[in-house]
Amino acid sequence: MYGLSRDDCERLDREDPLGTLRGRFELPSGLIYLDGNSLGALPVGARQRLDELVRVQWGEDLIRSWNRHDWIGMPRRIGAKIARLIGARDDEVIAADSTSINLFKLLAAALRLRPRRRIIVSERTNFPTDLYIIEGLIELLGQGHELRLVHADELSDALDEKVAVLVMTQVDYRSGRLHDLAALTRQAQAKGVLTLWDLSHSAGAMPIELNAAGVDMAVGCGYKYLNGGPGAPAYLFIARRHLRDAQPTIAGWMGHAAPFTFAPDYRPAAGIERHLVGTPPVLGLAALEVGVDLLLEADLQLVREKSRRLGDLYLRLLDQECAAFGFEHACPHDSTRRGSQVAVRHPQGYAIIQALIVEGVIGDFRAPDILRFGLAPLYLRYVDIWDAVAALHRVMASQAWNKPEFKRKATVT
Amino acid sequence: MYGLSRDDCERLDREDPLGTLRGRFELPSGLIYLDGNSLGALPVGARQRLDELVRVQWGEDLIRSWNRHDWIGMPRRIGAKIARLIGARDDEVIAADSTSINLFKLLAAALRLRPRRRIIVSERTNFPTDLYIIEGLIELLGQGHELRLVHADELSDALDEKVAVLVMTQVDYRSGRLHDLAALTRQAQAKGVLTLWDLSHSAGAMPIELNAAGVDMAVGCGYKYLNGGPGAPAYLFIARRHLRDAQPTIAGWMGHAAPFTFAPDYRPAAGIERHLVGTPPVLGLAALEVGVDLLLEADLQLVREKSRRLGDLYLRLLDQECAAFGFEHACPHDSTRRGSQVAVRHPQGYAIIQALIVEGVIGDFRAPDILRFGLAPLYLRYVDIWDAVAALHRVMASQAWNKPEFKRKATVT
Repeated sequence: MYGLSRDDCERLDREDPLGTLRGRFELPSGLIYLDGNSLGALPVGARQRLDELVRVQWGEDLIRSWNRHDWIGMPRRIGAKIARLIGARDDEVIAADSTSINLFKLLAAALRLRPRRRIIVSERTNFPTDLYIIEGLIELLGQGHELRLVHADELSDALDEKVAVLVMTQVDYRSGRLHDLAALTRQAQAKGVLTLWDLSHSAGAMPIELNAAGVDMAVGCGYKYLNGGPGAPAYLFIARRHLRDAQPTIAGWMGHAAPFTFAPDYRPAAGIERHLVGTPPVLGLAALEVGVDLLLEADLQLVREKSRRLGDLYLRLLDQECAAFGFEHACPHDSTRRGSQVAVRHPQGYAIIQALIVEGVIGDFRAPDILRFGLAPLYLRYVDIWDAVAALHRVMASQAWNKPEFKRKATVT
Repeated sequence: MYGLSRDDCERLDREDPLGTLRGRFELPSGLIYLDGNSLGALPVGARQRLDELVRVQWGEDLIRSWNRHDWIGMPRRIGAKIARLIGARDDEVIAADSTSINLFKLLAAALRLRPRRRIIVSERTNFPTDLYIIEGLIELLGQGHELRLVHADELSDALDEKVAVLVMTQVDYRSGRLHDLAALTRQAQAKGVLTLWDLSHSAGAMPIELNAAGVDMAVGCGYKYLNGGPGAPAYLFIARRHLRDAQPTIAGWMGHAAPFTFAPDYRPAAGIERHLVGTPPVLGLAALEVGVDLLLEADLQLVREKSRRLGDLYLRLLDQECAAFGFEHACPHDSTRRGSQVAVRHPQGYAIIQALIVEGVIGDFRAPDILRFGLAPLYLRYVDIWDAVAALHRVMASQAWNKPEFKRKATVT
């Protein structure tokens, strides 16, 4: 078998049409960061933007900045930019709150649009917080809704006329499996089922065409592939055809038709703004905007292509260099069915991830035995994949993972 | 009548035990800022804290910062600090989300603690978003709850055995009226009514003793007297006796007993953490912590005393200098019944506020005719009050407010 060399990877980097984007991030030297699907890297420009925001806008202009620097317009303005990343119109997206809270808001709104249906369908291995939110809302409402959890391959059978909403995450957070958003949405619509997609693990790493697919609602995260900073505000999408009828779930003043009249009665804003709740988190939104602006410079088709190649490269090098060490692929082989991450299984997964950190490679572990490596195409090089697999080889060949301090304990990674 | 002079105010400043705190804020020169009850000023140290956070914690340590810099502990750590400002225990408060969302979460939790009662009582002139949230939740639940709005003086009559929750803001956002938190809480408890207080316009400007008063729940804002920055995260309080039974309203992963096991089933954390929802907004929390730390250096009794004096001074100087111009006091005269703001009425209120801005004095306007001046005792001087009233005199004597560009239009101030 022809073996790939590090030189081959360097050549791929030289030919990479996205190669210059790496310089737009402040990356620590000596580190290979394969966790951009948990927290995206720091864009050059974010520091300056935040410092100007704090020093001038907060410090000097104070309350006047709501108008002078259009703080008040941030949720809509940044939402409109995110819309371009996910195939939405600029009046269909706002940046606000957290993904979990947005999911809660939209799911409740969706259920009110289907008052005679009582079933919510989702995938058994959906991101846990999405399942918690669904179950929590069902309990809160006490209206006899029911969550029907099925395996991914049984989804289309699970959709019938009793189902109100299908709640799906486009890319599985562990296996990296990429669901067919268009096909599932079409199947749901054929039964009158509303679709609510969580784009947290896909948006920013691939083109998404929500409107072309006829998606009804979506939410997503600001701090993964959007590089919006730790705990960045999230976003939500509602298709234009639902904007008039989708009621706000949490009726806060920022969703009022005229927030600054301080009227005693709530009158929802005409458009997507009605799903705003409290005062916008200005610091977080400013950092998010820098990340989104940077992403808008990239051609998402090229981003996707590179993402697939990085994943293919990782799996091929793993087979080439680490065949002796008992890894199993835990993600789809076919890159068209895989998100921007690879996952492999190993019984010592936790310890191996810890030992890799010592080697300067950051991935993460997901119980019980998954090593997960995020492949952020904007700032990763092909040679980083080579070096990451070489580090994995070192860790395995030397048994560097087999140390007491790498024993698994409850932790945050 | 003995008239106060600017010299008298300078003397008060020299004797002010809190006088040195002003230097701990970065205040724009030439500006008198009487809007700290809308957006608090920038603490010295916030810029550096954020820059270090962005550069080192986000940029270099990346995902490792959740442990290395205890991002994961921020909601509890900052909550525990806020607890010291409001007479709570450190396990009763978290910093999270927005005030409106926290109110939604706690009100729903409170209603579930009183399943047989259907009435929510609040004050007719409560902050509008609080009323919107209540009405929105009632509609969402569809369980026949009812909002009973009464005048502040009729509150105790409105509390009976059918009432589940009393929702109150401690200081009225327009008039500055300070409600008797202890007395109202006592009256509510005598009828088995839970109390949910919004401290947004009081915390940080006066001592608050939630536990001494027996308050059940509270929420508050991070960006007013806490000086946490624009759109700072808010906080919530639940008395320890309710922690076991108060269910999380929005069941997100950060409220899970073990968030990082990614278990498919939701199991609420034992304590106050179960009311967390999504990933903590790290940038906003860091800025908030700087503001809270600064406030913790001040003796809140002295803060309250100065706040009352600043208000008394403003009203006295207004009467002394501006008697000819038709202002009416719109806030309580008795400083023990007034929050840290004054309010006066004038038919040309909007234009006057605009003209004052040109004179370097920032207050704000609340329809239909209220001029509202916030008095943040940490960074305002007595002489600022003198200069603010002198500016008001100039605006009125010269009719500087009477210009076409100061005509009222929909705006954000």
